[in-house]
Amino acid sequence: MKVQGTHYKTIWMEGDVVFMIEQNKLPFSFQIHKCYNYRETCKAIVEMTVRGAGAIGAAAGYAMAQAFMADENVLDAREYIKATRPTARDLFYAVNEVYEAGIINKQSAIIRAKQVAFENEEAGRLIGSLGNTLIPYKSNILTHCNAGWLAFVDHGSALAPIYAAHKEGKQIHVYVDETRPRSQGARLTAWELSNEGIPHTIIPDNAGAYLMSKGLIDLVITGADRITANGDAANKIGTLEKAIVANYYGVPFYIAAPTSTIDFFTETGKEIIIEERSQDEVLWQTGTDASGTINTVRVANPASGALNPAFDVTPNHLIDAFITEKGIIKATELSSLLLHDKQTPSV
Amino acid sequence: MKVQGTHYKTIWMEGDVVFMIEQNKLPFSFQIHKCYNYRETCKAIVEMTVRGAGAIGAAAGYAMAQAFMADENVLDAREYIKATRPTARDLFYAVNEVYEAGIINKQSAIIRAKQVAFENEEAGRLIGSLGNTLIPYKSNILTHCNAGWLAFVDHGSALAPIYAAHKEGKQIHVYVDETRPRSQGARLTAWELSNEGIPHTIIPDNAGAYLMSKGLIDLVITGADRITANGDAANKIGTLEKAIVANYYGVPFYIAAPTSTIDFFTETGKEIIIEERSQDEVLWQTGTDASGTINTVRVANPASGALNPAFDVTPNHLIDAFITEKGIIKATELSSLLLHDKQTPSV
Repeated sequence: MKVQGTHYKTIWMEGDVVFMIEQNKLPFSFQIHKCYNYRETCKAIVEMTVRGAGAIGAAAGYAMAQAFMADENVLDAREYIKATRPTARDLFYAVNEVYEAGIINKQSAIIRAKQVAFENEEAGRLIGSLGNTLIPYKSNILTHCNAGWLAFVDHGSALAPIYAAHKEGKQIHVYVDETRPRSQGARLTAWELSNEGIPHTIIPDNAGAYLMSKGLIDLVITGADRITANGDAANKIGTLEKAIVANYYGVPFYIAAPTSTIDFFTETGKEIIIEERSQDEVLWQTGTDASGTINTVRVANPASGALNPAFDVTPNHLIDAFITEKGIIKATELSSLLLHDKQTPSV
Repeated sequence: MKVQGTHYKTIWMEGDVVFMIEQNKLPFSFQIHKCYNYRETCKAIVEMTVRGAGAIGAAAGYAMAQAFMADENVLDAREYIKATRPTARDLFYAVNEVYEAGIINKQSAIIRAKQVAFENEEAGRLIGSLGNTLIPYKSNILTHCNAGWLAFVDHGSALAPIYAAHKEGKQIHVYVDETRPRSQGARLTAWELSNEGIPHTIIPDNAGAYLMSKGLIDLVITGADRITANGDAANKIGTLEKAIVANYYGVPFYIAAPTSTIDFFTETGKEIIIEERSQDEVLWQTGTDASGTINTVRVANPASGALNPAFDVTPNHLIDAFITEKGIIKATELSSLLLHDKQTPSV
């Protein structure tokens, strides 16, 4: 998608170097970050230089390929990469795919890593055109966190139908959940929508139910980090809250995600381990001061601590449909995909 | 309640000067702000130097008394004070009470303003001992925003039962919603609980449903800015969201508020006008940097705007009970209070 008019992808590989948009610097500064070996790529995943299910998947695949290219101990590398983010299904998928290709030969690992990234980009394009059919001509759409092109290789998942609807000329307006504590909505989704010229308004995460109570939200679309066999979906903390509230008000709640996000080897969301991140993400906030200098300030009582669960799990019955590259399907129909596809274990 | 071991009230009057804790500086700096006339007191309300239903009520009563003491045009003053915050029922109550006393004579206005403040303090004390009966011996309590002693003259509403339970030796732990955009939870509630030595953890507003899904919340207590005749309750944005989520998980949801918050002349919450505050409260955040200097940083995409509704309305059926100084009552029983009490119109 576009950055000030020029097309970019979120992540790509040239030779044995992985290039990625430095997402921690957005929206205040646009920089390209380079990773010269798999450890640097893993560091970029851990530090969220690259983030979002699909982009992490691509990064993990490239990291695995880097390990093969540099003749590293690839078994160690595989475990090291998998340990970077425990919730992301796409990461496990990409690492396993590239590992299996790499044990045949190095070149296959590189090809497979690039394929995994391309599959992700293509999935985004298809999610966009399919999801667009669910968006009324005039509508207000609520989204949580960033499941835009920055979270994938391109296009995105939750934002892909929004881009498609806007391109078609639909009169849409997007309410963007701030998405504390890391504010990916206010920073990344808002930045993406600005660059594409799509009307949008940032709201505090607290305002969703209020807007729905006033009839101001026509549909909700979010992404997912992992979808289990029964259609439960792990996504950014607060997604569950929006799903419950949307259900209460009868507002359609959709999850847009490529099928690589589906983990058929995990039965239900109850089995998903929820990552807890540093309390400092809640207690401190980074931004630019009036002079444009990046500064970090403590926004909470100095004597208090915080809890920072990164994800929650939305149960299947609160999800009206999944928007995937293979079609718009109900939670109960997910298993039909299993019949048609080859599946490899996730761990 | 205590500030580093010394007892303070949130607001008080000496002579014709109104003293108040400067709440915009908390939790980083503890200062007393002085208002020498009713316009300065109104400015303190508008700028949220004093905030919270009960404390605003006391401030408004003192402001009205200041107008009488300074021989100002008291009708103009009354309207000026009422215009400071459109949602606060306690404000209208206090202004009307002091105005009616003042038209008899100046001295009565002062006495009535001090009575209104004392009534508020006493209501907090009673809400504490009554609400404590709803708190299990070992429990995790979720609260939103700050309905502590800083929001009243003393004791508070939502936090009063928590203070009473802690004093009695109950093993309680409080999850404190950050409460974006102004973060009154992370800043004020956390500061109050620290000063009283009560175990607590700040959480992002997004984490409430997650904790309830894990069975980690035993009850929710919030305050209210205005309660209508049918038991709908206007409170800080996000309260509605917590009430819907608590209802979904079967977690008891209580609203603690003095009966002065009840507006029997407004039938339902639908009639309440919701104040919209500056978008800058969402887009910028203030705190202390690593060197301890107060700084304000932009935390959102520079090219985007925000919406900032200050309150939402929780419908009566989501509220398990109201904890008032006159007893713990169901929404449907609110009207029983009307039979026993003299009521004056709010506007």
